[in-house]
Amino acid sequence: MLEQLKAEVLAANLALPKYHLVTFTWGNVSAIDKSSGLMVIKPSGVEYADMQIDDMVVIDIASGAIVEGRKKPSSDTPTHLVLYRHFRDIGGVVHTHSRHATIWAQAGRFLPPHGTTHADYFYGAVPCTRLMTKQEINDDYELQTGKLIVQTFAEQQLDPMKIPAILVHSHGPFTWGVNAANAVHNAVVLEECAYMSLFSQQLNSELTFIQQELLDKHYLRKHGANAYYGQT
Amino acid sequence: MLEQLKAEVLAANLALPKYHLVTFTWGNVSAIDKSSGLMVIKPSGVEYADMQIDDMVVIDIASGAIVEGRKKPSSDTPTHLVLYRHFRDIGGVVHTHSRHATIWAQAGRFLPPHGTTHADYFYGAVPCTRLMTKQEINDDYELQTGKLIVQTFAEQQLDPMKIPAILVHSHGPFTWGVNAANAVHNAVVLEECAYMSLFSQQLNSELTFIQQELLDKHYLRKHGANAYYGQT
Amino acid sequence: MLEQLKAEVLAANLALPKYHLVTFTWGNVSAIDKSSGLMVIKPSGVEYADMQIDDMVVIDIASGAIVEGRKKPSSDTPTHLVLYRHFRDIGGVVHTHSRHATIWAQAGRFLPPHGTTHADYFYGAVPCTRLMTKQEINDDYELQTGKLIVQTFAEQQLDPMKIPAILVHSHGPFTWGVNAANAVHNAVVLEECAYMSLFSQQLNSELTFIQQELLDKHYLRKHGANAYYGQT
Amino acid sequence: MLEQLKAEVLAANLALPKYHLVTFTWGNVSAIDKSSGLMVIKPSGVEYADMQIDDMVVIDIASGAIVEGRKKPSSDTPTHLVLYRHFRDIGGVVHTHSRHATIWAQAGRFLPPHGTTHADYFYGAVPCTRLMTKQEINDDYELQTGKLIVQTFAEQQLDPMKIPAILVHSHGPFTWGVNAANAVHNAVVLEECAYMSLFSQQLNSELTFIQQELLDKHYLRKHGANAYYGQT
Repeated sequence: MLEQLKAEVLAANLALPKYHLVTFTWGNVSAIDKSSGLMVIKPSGVEYADMQIDDMVVIDIASGAIVEGRKKPSSDTPTHLVLYRHFRDIGGVVHTHSRHATIWAQAGRFLPPHGTTHADYFYGAVPCTRLMTKQEINDDYELQTGKLIVQTFAEQQLDPMKIPAILVHSHGPFTWGVNAANAVHNAVVLEECAYMSLFSQQLNSELTFIQQELLDKHYLRKHGANAYYGQT
Repeated sequence: MLEQLKAEVLAANLALPKYHLVTFTWGNVSAIDKSSGLMVIKPSGVEYADMQIDDMVVIDIASGAIVEGRKKPSSDTPTHLVLYRHFRDIGGVVHTHSRHATIWAQAGRFLPPHGTTHADYFYGAVPCTRLMTKQEINDDYELQTGKLIVQTFAEQQLDPMKIPAILVHSHGPFTWGVNAANAVHNAVVLEECAYMSLFSQQLNSELTFIQQELLDKHYLRKHGANAYYGQT
Repeated sequence: MLEQLKAEVLAANLALPKYHLVTFTWGNVSAIDKSSGLMVIKPSGVEYADMQIDDMVVIDIASGAIVEGRKKPSSDTPTHLVLYRHFRDIGGVVHTHSRHATIWAQAGRFLPPHGTTHADYFYGAVPCTRLMTKQEINDDYELQTGKLIVQTFAEQQLDPMKIPAILVHSHGPFTWGVNAANAVHNAVVLEECAYMSLFSQQLNSELTFIQQELLDKHYLRKHGANAYYGQT
Repeated sequence: MLEQLKAEVLAANLALPKYHLVTFTWGNVSAIDKSSGLMVIKPSGVEYADMQIDDMVVIDIASGAIVEGRKKPSSDTPTHLVLYRHFRDIGGVVHTHSRHATIWAQAGRFLPPHGTTHADYFYGAVPCTRLMTKQEINDDYELQTGKLIVQTFAEQQLDPMKIPAILVHSHGPFTWGVNAANAVHNAVVLEECAYMSLFSQQLNSELTFIQQELLDKHYLRKHGANAYYGQT
């Protein structure tokens, strides 16, 4: 079942080491089939080099039940499921410990928009969650991680389609997109922006956000009704 | 038409990922045929891996009209055109978001000449533009970017052939040269110098410009009538 | 003798350059056969590209005598032997001068747990030894290095199976694990965490340890009786 | 003539891009034949990918005259010659603009010995020259660069065989060794130490030199009469 989607999810997972976003098995990608309400996600702790299409696990989004799969799904599965349940327009989710996005997450700092590279993809700062409570950590940790992401977007009134990424405090980034490949694309961009902003603010300790009109210009020339970047 | 020039522009575009200057499609190279007044530039948003010689777009420099091409040209096309119209000796232009040049651009700081690597290619600091005005951003943004580059060189009385690069504030670098390959070469050097100066000034917080006579020596042993570097 | 173990030790040594942990011959891996009380270790100063299975040296753990081998063993052999004699559950040891772990060692600072990447592998800070005394350096230096590592774990009441790494002051990291491959794995993780913590604390000068409950959660979901990460 | 030496010099030059020490043609290696008093050096400004054994240039060390070669020698040839004339035990010289050694050179700071990696190869700090005078720059610049290196070693009473490297202020590193390959080896080590010390002193702002006895121990276990590292 869902052979095409499994192939996309496998390819997206294999793209993580290709883009130097993961060490060992430290990342996972999922994608969903909206019509059937099913999610495909990579198995837990399997080497990328050994991963096969049949290792992908199919899960029912609403119930979280495993529908198909001979392996255990990623331990971050409950986080992915919460994101799909609440961010209704997304089709793919990525989690990595990519170096520079994780550096910001470990520092507990949101990633400010310092330039047009950021503005081309993220329509504002990439938020960082608050610390999790002891209860959230001890009770359904991966589920609570997802809930905290959703809560952060709600409280800061952010649109997950316009800022398709978050930094989980003391942990690392999650990104998403319209499908698995797009979510990986956003993970690459996030890492690139995290690298550059780290050192831009070292070069200019009074650095503030990019001008709002430049943020608008770059984001909107690539996204939305008046986009004019690319061939379509 | 211009098959040789298209091949050069394609090769120069493909050199960008080879030199680790671009992620995805975040860069563009153009070159001109001075006799016909035509520019060849890469298409917008096409993956480097898929790019073909016939994807190159031919544009009339004076009017900006597309003369040949089945694809849309790079969205930065108006910036390239302004540079060719005003910097009359250049033959190729490159734009990238290369990491360290972009770090300086995001910080809004010009790149000071700290060593002979810089002096071998750039006869002084690489300038950074001022912030663009709201009107410049909203009205013909890419054209205004080009005008701001030209204005910066005019106001600071810089010779674009002696300092073949600029940092556009909050955005990233543009470089140029006598042809497409030379413009890419300068983009590589700029990135290298941007990396080294970032950390040199961290090691020595009172670091100033290289001595003028050493700047002269290195620039002039590679450029101009008395050059003695290389085989010619 | 011990052909399988030699093959594992050779493979683990060759993994060091693959993971960019070593330059030239600056690293060594050993592993032990507990039933026979023998250690297999790489030869001293042999290029990784030229290393053959028959170059591996077999040493008696208790006496330190060479049992088999046509080449001299790694000069760090006495350090490895001390670790096996005192950390009774380990099966493999790695020493490298990997860049970022060495940066912390040269700074004389322990590596604090700043995030879940660290917590997934190291159950607390990775300690840094004190400076060695003049006598320790001049008298059986490599043996004393091992003794200092053991002393550091004893004094700080650390469990070497829960924190399978140390930074030797002014020198570099040692890691260990249940076998050679696992010890290399831990060396890779240590390097990754050392890189990220270096810059996390630059981004947040008041950064403290990860919350204890998050450290517990991540370490214990991968290790111990209640682990639920991976396929087993 | 000197076919074997030319092959060694060509191989050593090709090792520079392999070890990521050079961009484009920014490096040069030479070696000498002591019996004939001749030096072999790479040509000026020739791409490494195109370089052939017959491009190597043979020069008389005493007079500086070109003895054989169809191409112009490296523009840094006079610097190499001065080093061979004064440092009588060296057999090979390397110049690069490798990133981190150049960062220290641009900052005008000597490279302090912070760890055993440094101590394994350099028996103390790697010196940085003073700034050159206007006259030195304008009059036989490359020759004066060599003289300044020699002067620096003389004034600081350093042994070039024990510290086979220097940072030329505002410029970059020169290294040397018993032959071309050994000089390249030292250039790799210098770059590695320059990287690590840059960040070690950021982690510990009060960082001082490695203990003298540890410097002694590591340097002397690899060099001199009582060395015991490696197979010989």
